[in-house]
Amino acid sequence: MNTNDKIIKLREQMQLFGLDAYIVYTSDPHNSEYPADHWKFREYLSGFNGSAGTLVVTKNHAGLWTDSRYFIQAEKQLRGSCVELHKMFTPGVPDYVTYLTYLLPSGSTVGVDGFTMTMHEYRTLKHKLGNFGIEMNIKLDFASDLFVQRPPLPTNEVWLVPRVHEGLSRQEKVAAVREEMKKLGATHYLVSALDDVAWVTNIRCSDVEYNPVFYAYMIITADEEHLYINPHKLTTETSKMLENDGITLSLYEHYERNLGNIPSNARVLFDPEQLNSRCALAIPAECIKVESRSIITHLKSLKSDFEIKNIKAAHVRDGVALVKFARYMLENVGRTRLTELSLSERLTSERAKMPHYLSDSFGTIMAYGPNAAIVHYEPTIESNADVEPRGLILIDSGGQYADGTTDITRTFALGPVSDKEKLHYTLTLKGTIGLATAVFPEGTRGTQLDTFCRHAMWRYGVDYGHGSGHGVGYCLNVHEGPQNISKKPIDVAIEKGMVTSDEPGIYVEGSHGVRIENLTVCVEAKKTSFGTFLGFETITMFPIDTAPILTDLLTPQEVRWLNDYHKTVYDALSPHLDGDDLEWLRKACQPIGQ
Amino acid sequence: MNTNDKIIKLREQMQLFGLDAYIVYTSDPHNSEYPADHWKFREYLSGFNGSAGTLVVTKNHAGLWTDSRYFIQAEKQLRGSCVELHKMFTPGVPDYVTYLTYLLPSGSTVGVDGFTMTMHEYRTLKHKLGNFGIEMNIKLDFASDLFVQRPPLPTNEVWLVPRVHEGLSRQEKVAAVREEMKKLGATHYLVSALDDVAWVTNIRCSDVEYNPVFYAYMIITADEEHLYINPHKLTTETSKMLENDGITLSLYEHYERNLGNIPSNARVLFDPEQLNSRCALAIPAECIKVESRSIITHLKSLKSDFEIKNIKAAHVRDGVALVKFARYMLENVGRTRLTELSLSERLTSERAKMPHYLSDSFGTIMAYGPNAAIVHYEPTIESNADVEPRGLILIDSGGQYADGTTDITRTFALGPVSDKEKLHYTLTLKGTIGLATAVFPEGTRGTQLDTFCRHAMWRYGVDYGHGSGHGVGYCLNVHEGPQNISKKPIDVAIEKGMVTSDEPGIYVEGSHGVRIENLTVCVEAKKTSFGTFLGFETITMFPIDTAPILTDLLTPQEVRWLNDYHKTVYDALSPHLDGDDLEWLRKACQPIGQ
Repeated sequence: MNTNDKIIKLREQMQLFGLDAYIVYTSDPHNSEYPADHWKFREYLSGFNGSAGTLVVTKNHAGLWTDSRYFIQAEKQLRGSCVELHKMFTPGVPDYVTYLTYLLPSGSTVGVDGFTMTMHEYRTLKHKLGNFGIEMNIKLDFASDLFVQRPPLPTNEVWLVPRVHEGLSRQEKVAAVREEMKKLGATHYLVSALDDVAWVTNIRCSDVEYNPVFYAYMIITADEEHLYINPHKLTTETSKMLENDGITLSLYEHYERNLGNIPSNARVLFDPEQLNSRCALAIPAECIKVESRSIITHLKSLKSDFEIKNIKAAHVRDGVALVKFARYMLENVGRTRLTELSLSERLTSERAKMPHYLSDSFGTIMAYGPNAAIVHYEPTIESNADVEPRGLILIDSGGQYADGTTDITRTFALGPVSDKEKLHYTLTLKGTIGLATAVFPEGTRGTQLDTFCRHAMWRYGVDYGHGSGHGVGYCLNVHEGPQNISKKPIDVAIEKGMVTSDEPGIYVEGSHGVRIENLTVCVEAKKTSFGTFLGFETITMFPIDTAPILTDLLTPQEVRWLNDYHKTVYDALSPHLDGDDLEWLRKACQPIGQ
Repeated sequence: MNTNDKIIKLREQMQLFGLDAYIVYTSDPHNSEYPADHWKFREYLSGFNGSAGTLVVTKNHAGLWTDSRYFIQAEKQLRGSCVELHKMFTPGVPDYVTYLTYLLPSGSTVGVDGFTMTMHEYRTLKHKLGNFGIEMNIKLDFASDLFVQRPPLPTNEVWLVPRVHEGLSRQEKVAAVREEMKKLGATHYLVSALDDVAWVTNIRCSDVEYNPVFYAYMIITADEEHLYINPHKLTTETSKMLENDGITLSLYEHYERNLGNIPSNARVLFDPEQLNSRCALAIPAECIKVESRSIITHLKSLKSDFEIKNIKAAHVRDGVALVKFARYMLENVGRTRLTELSLSERLTSERAKMPHYLSDSFGTIMAYGPNAAIVHYEPTIESNADVEPRGLILIDSGGQYADGTTDITRTFALGPVSDKEKLHYTLTLKGTIGLATAVFPEGTRGTQLDTFCRHAMWRYGVDYGHGSGHGVGYCLNVHEGPQNISKKPIDVAIEKGMVTSDEPGIYVEGSHGVRIENLTVCVEAKKTSFGTFLGFETITMFPIDTAPILTDLLTPQEVRWLNDYHKTVYDALSPHLDGDDLEWLRKACQPIGQ
């Protein structure tokens, strides 16, 4: 069956259920960044396999909305089908909701699988469509009928986090959760984000790529803890261990139904930005709903001293792997044939040699020359560029270790670089240092700190379109909330113990891209009569290429920071290196003058 | 009747209507910063006349919640009454909502006059109380029964903005409004903020102190414009003129009732953060509600070139008045007896001599020495301090002119000042300059820019508790939205043409306070391949005292900005001054070296 046949089948279902449009999101019931194949209905229907996109089918039109990262790929993959590409955020292209409100008369009905949208998304959509008299039906999961040869939900076996890497035990964690529930006056707490479940249970798995999580839900009450999971994912021993720790196991499929059985005098806590709308609407109407940011998402973000110690150790191993990789790349460029893909494999193999390595923490962005201007570029067989001894290469990569998650971007000069490239490299570095050295009072939000990354480049009329920092898990998701350093006005303070990236960049289409990313941990900077002030300690341990720096543009304070950082990196990595690797590190960490 | 008697009467009413608590806000049906006396029921009941506070009466307790600005005043004014002071934002003091949820059992009912809370506030309160099973009744306006000798609603006569000061005619304005209504798909637009009504009708009045507005509501449709106003406020001629311009006049009191008559197929636009809950809930349930930030609030903030030209001219006159005042103060301090109150009167009288002066734009903050640490200090007969030739005086003041509204803060050294005062003065100045020189891409929000004011002082562990900038009207409210430069994550971009203050400060309780405030207009700074970048032009025209500056702490760029600014000020004001005033200005504007 080709795309057009699939769309015809979909329209038949739409007609059967009286729908005027059907929306297919790229998501799963847990609002995951990386959904399992089971949930790739949008990809199945449209043939477009990019990681972001929304398919909207009406009686006479089928459209795919995606952003500029995927324009070329989507055009290619949609060619010959009836699905039309709508280029998001392009002048004159309305978003799919506006499109629907233009197209559909009042009284129409739009179908969505409520499992694939959060309660918050559902409300927003319902409100916008409602303004135009358009109804919604979220109970129609057409995937179960139409998704031919649909991959089953993953049945991968889970493992328990070993004691030696456990921050807090699962009993300690649930006790902390219950304390917060009490403060919010909640009797039942619905946990749906996969990394929230993994954190509070101290369980890991490999259900999806990169994130060591597993498909499960939870309900936590004052004295019970229910884990909804496919029992085939647990060995008898694991099940017993969890049950000994007070966790009751239930079937994954029974979650929605069991939510309907929550007693009507319960006060049910859930995060409308995490819980899917089907489950949220399954809570009995009589229950009092306590809507709040997920307790676990917040607790999880505050790394303990023990976790920070481990994370730092993981960063030293990560740095050692990167030194070996970087020396290989820089010594062989122009001598051996190197490509983005061969370098990417090499980097993964260097990481894989390190103790406690589990997997990469996301697909490596190995982007040479103009490819680096594509922010979420991942080399493919078609795009794979030869890497030459000139210009810049941008490498954004990370590892999942049993004792920490890493995420680092470095941009290297492989030979001569242009003045423009040097300027952009230096402005980016000023941004990285700007955030790294920020001092700010408790309660400061990420959006206030975002400016520290952009301040210097804005004066030059330069900016970038992505965020400046995201939370990073502890052997968990490389992108985790609740904090975020970006232009978006999210009401979350940066708190002591949070691990957050610091990653400004500059991108010139068709020419080059620069990004310099470190992970930081938020620490106390000073206490004064005006309050407690926080700052960042940079924990990524790998030198920043000094070759493309325009030293004159740096302030003396910036030069000092860079030299201090390189001394710290050298002291951290040198005991684990010898021979040529050690010599390479020594040179890379040499102080710059002004 | 004393406070206790009034509370007894209130409790009788509560019992009659089955209420377990009654909340009295400090507001009016238009969410005004300065409500008319008619709406001062909280003051009437409690005896506390500060401008902020919430009275909560239950069966056994009466409490006033107010913030630290008013602790001393409230303690004094509540003394001997049954009303207990709850010090807001003090550790261990729950806010009144939390207090009520602790106190009242599920099934209780809380009464409020829905006219005195916005729809947004109503929803938030209803949601929080609802989580604890507490109901709300907002239809109980106890003031109409209990407020003895209640002042009537103001009947002051309005005036039409003269053509020569009109930015756009009222027909042009309503046409612009209707264009935005169309985009939002609204057929009816409910206008409730008093300055929104004043702007779109080009009418001014003196119903309340400082803000040249009048009590009125509007309903704007595609072809009708209804103004709800007490007809005694209009001369026959004015009424005729408005009717000629397409405005239908209705009685102020009929607004709520007429909202109930909006046809059920209407799509009604209102701003839930502006419209009071009684009116919002009067809209027929069948109508589609289009909730959005008020169209007029946004249009009003974008000053036209004509308005900006006028505003700048008003600032020159304001600067001239300030020069005369400042010379008087600085030459007489230590010679004549000067007090905060005598200086405040002098300043008002200098402004009043200027053409087009209408009134002050708010109560002058004339704060000497430790009084300047009280952020919203206004001298009273009790607090009035003698002004001596030492230390700092903080003066925050402004004028309403027919062609613009001003708001300026200067802090002067009256003689020797301490090193700490100099440090804080210099850090404040760095903040003022930091924001004044910011360059930022279109779409940047105030909360991102707020950091430009605080960056330098944060490094010293210093901060301040108020915002860094607010919008300012055109012969309208000195505080106007929608933009705001502060820590609060408000989703409003700073746009070209907005007039916004730039006012960092530093306050040390019991010692001193510093604030340096200029008004700015947002202008285009540069266009690059990365987009359009904006910046600020400082339009306040009065020198910044250079005596307390620690020049070593300024960067060369900051010194250059200050010297350039003083040159601009001198060029703008000197043609309007002569003799000793001119000589004073010349000295005050002299460049500083480094």
